[in-house]
Amino acid sequence: MSALLKETVSCISELDELSLKKAGDRLEQLAMPKGALGDLMTFGKRCAGIMRTEKPCFKKKVIFTMAGDHGVAREGVSAYPGEVTIQMVLNFLKGGAGINALADHVGAEVVVVDMGVAHEFGIVNGLIDCKVGMGTASITKGPAMTRDMAVKSIEAGIGLVKQYHEQGVDIIGTGDMGIANTTPSSAIAAVITGKPVEEITGRGTGISDDVLTNKISVIKRALSLNNPDPDDGLDILSKVGGFEIGGIAGLILGSAACRIPVVVDGFISTAGALIALKICPLIKDYIFMAHKSMEAGHRYMLDYIGHKPMLDLNLRLGEGTGAALGISLVEAGVKILTDVFTFEEAGVHSPVDN
Amino acid sequence: MSALLKETVSCISELDELSLKKAGDRLEQLAMPKGALGDLMTFGKRCAGIMRTEKPCFKKKVIFTMAGDHGVAREGVSAYPGEVTIQMVLNFLKGGAGINALADHVGAEVVVVDMGVAHEFGIVNGLIDCKVGMGTASITKGPAMTRDMAVKSIEAGIGLVKQYHEQGVDIIGTGDMGIANTTPSSAIAAVITGKPVEEITGRGTGISDDVLTNKISVIKRALSLNNPDPDDGLDILSKVGGFEIGGIAGLILGSAACRIPVVVDGFISTAGALIALKICPLIKDYIFMAHKSMEAGHRYMLDYIGHKPMLDLNLRLGEGTGAALGISLVEAGVKILTDVFTFEEAGVHSPVDN
Repeated sequence: MSALLKETVSCISELDELSLKKAGDRLEQLAMPKGALGDLMTFGKRCAGIMRTEKPCFKKKVIFTMAGDHGVAREGVSAYPGEVTIQMVLNFLKGGAGINALADHVGAEVVVVDMGVAHEFGIVNGLIDCKVGMGTASITKGPAMTRDMAVKSIEAGIGLVKQYHEQGVDIIGTGDMGIANTTPSSAIAAVITGKPVEEITGRGTGISDDVLTNKISVIKRALSLNNPDPDDGLDILSKVGGFEIGGIAGLILGSAACRIPVVVDGFISTAGALIALKICPLIKDYIFMAHKSMEAGHRYMLDYIGHKPMLDLNLRLGEGTGAALGISLVEAGVKILTDVFTFEEAGVHSPVDN
Repeated sequence: MSALLKETVSCISELDELSLKKAGDRLEQLAMPKGALGDLMTFGKRCAGIMRTEKPCFKKKVIFTMAGDHGVAREGVSAYPGEVTIQMVLNFLKGGAGINALADHVGAEVVVVDMGVAHEFGIVNGLIDCKVGMGTASITKGPAMTRDMAVKSIEAGIGLVKQYHEQGVDIIGTGDMGIANTTPSSAIAAVITGKPVEEITGRGTGISDDVLTNKISVIKRALSLNNPDPDDGLDILSKVGGFEIGGIAGLILGSAACRIPVVVDGFISTAGALIALKICPLIKDYIFMAHKSMEAGHRYMLDYIGHKPMLDLNLRLGEGTGAALGISLVEAGVKILTDVFTFEEAGVHSPVDN
């Protein structure tokens, strides 16, 4: 492990017990039946523990949309040609994509990051250059990237969090763009959850039965050829991952180190979360799983992580769209903790059985 | 049926086919895999059909928190004493309740309505007086209210929508406050869904096993004594309902008549929706079910209505809290329809198989 990654992991600790306790005590006193706002209350409490304050508050929200290309796109695994990654990156910057609409809706900024698109953008206003390579190599021919590149992609995500945290960002959402990236994500999920490739692999952008059969066979070949070590997150990422997936793992590790709640989007972001979890299991307390994707294997990944997804709206777009909605729910939870009166403050009788 | 209710029902028609078609066509062209934003897209499309425009937009959002008391509260069915209804109404007006925090979060105004609290508030700033009575009669002794009062409570809800619609309100959320009101709501649900009282009835604000047993027995006695006609919404409301439940039914009927999307909160609001549905089945297309409540029987009510709830966050507070979050999701859906670029506008290739 290189210095930045090692230092980041060493900074990640458990949630702050005192803030959790104070938040929990206040939630019990709110003028409502005990626990009546369910999961929202647990979101608020967890943010207290993450941010080390009984009065958490979000002043600046950012969703990072991490873009990368995949050599495996040339193996006929997607319904879209590879150049759509480039076109969508430009669309994000024009403000015309799903993530722009939803981030705007929840008051978050979208930061578009080139983690490894197979295109030289030159200087494009608003695009953050963290390019690790011109797309990964095809995982059917060998590893997606070197171990050094895997570290570099994760450290890029960590660096972004540090930089934006210094600018006041206090909650982060993850997002992705990369034609064919459900293929490496499925491979990662199969390795880490141990589920069969057939059950993990889904239709991505909407592929036919034949393409799905090919995609499953491609993933099996890639796993057999590269044989990633299921206990080594960096090995998995380098063998069958993607630059944007490494970047997302870095965002999550960086958020945990900076004590920022991080809302994880759908299938691809969850693959990034699995990599981060393998590198540092403590990140579990810092992540909020935004939604259950339509992509077949996502539920196994969520089960493995052990968090209930906040939403189940049949989304399967990525970009950070689910994370945008999830940020709004986490913020709702925080406002319950901080803005609702206690029985005493409200002048309301506690239940007769108290 | 009295004049206003009759006229309102006669105004309710099906969704606008042309706007549905135009919205559906645009959604198919958005620069993303077909249907990739799942339920959000159906929310946006349905709003187009409701509002008769392919470019729906919400400028003014209101959540009505309808308060009423229940004679049956004296039969030991709740964990809280009846006067908590009064105290919570005052807390809503002070801005200290869950609904205040969540409405503020989603940019909605809270309008607090006295539909029949057992207390003379006099003139209280911000409280809308639609009082139909000083709480209902106990449904174990006879009907909750007269048929005239049932009509009056529904018409109060209709009147509120008309008044606020004239002021520019274009999306409405329903909410409730009323100690013991899961009891009449369970009775309504049992009559309309045909499910056994034992399966419909839950723990409300958090009652013990003994109180739950008593609550079930109270509801059974009330249904046996009053024998409501399952095909007559007004009969059900008058026999075993509540003033705030009638008010909520009125909000829903009024919203459908004014072509305003209406987001229905949890258990009590859904009882209101069932009454509205019995009076006019066409309202189904105008309602959005905000969430699946923790209250046991809610899932049967949702199944009966036939809409999937938007959220499942273990909420069981009422007040309109779930509706607030639901309004934000409906609005997200509308923004997908109106703000996201098409493939052509974005300069993105359609899928190769198009």
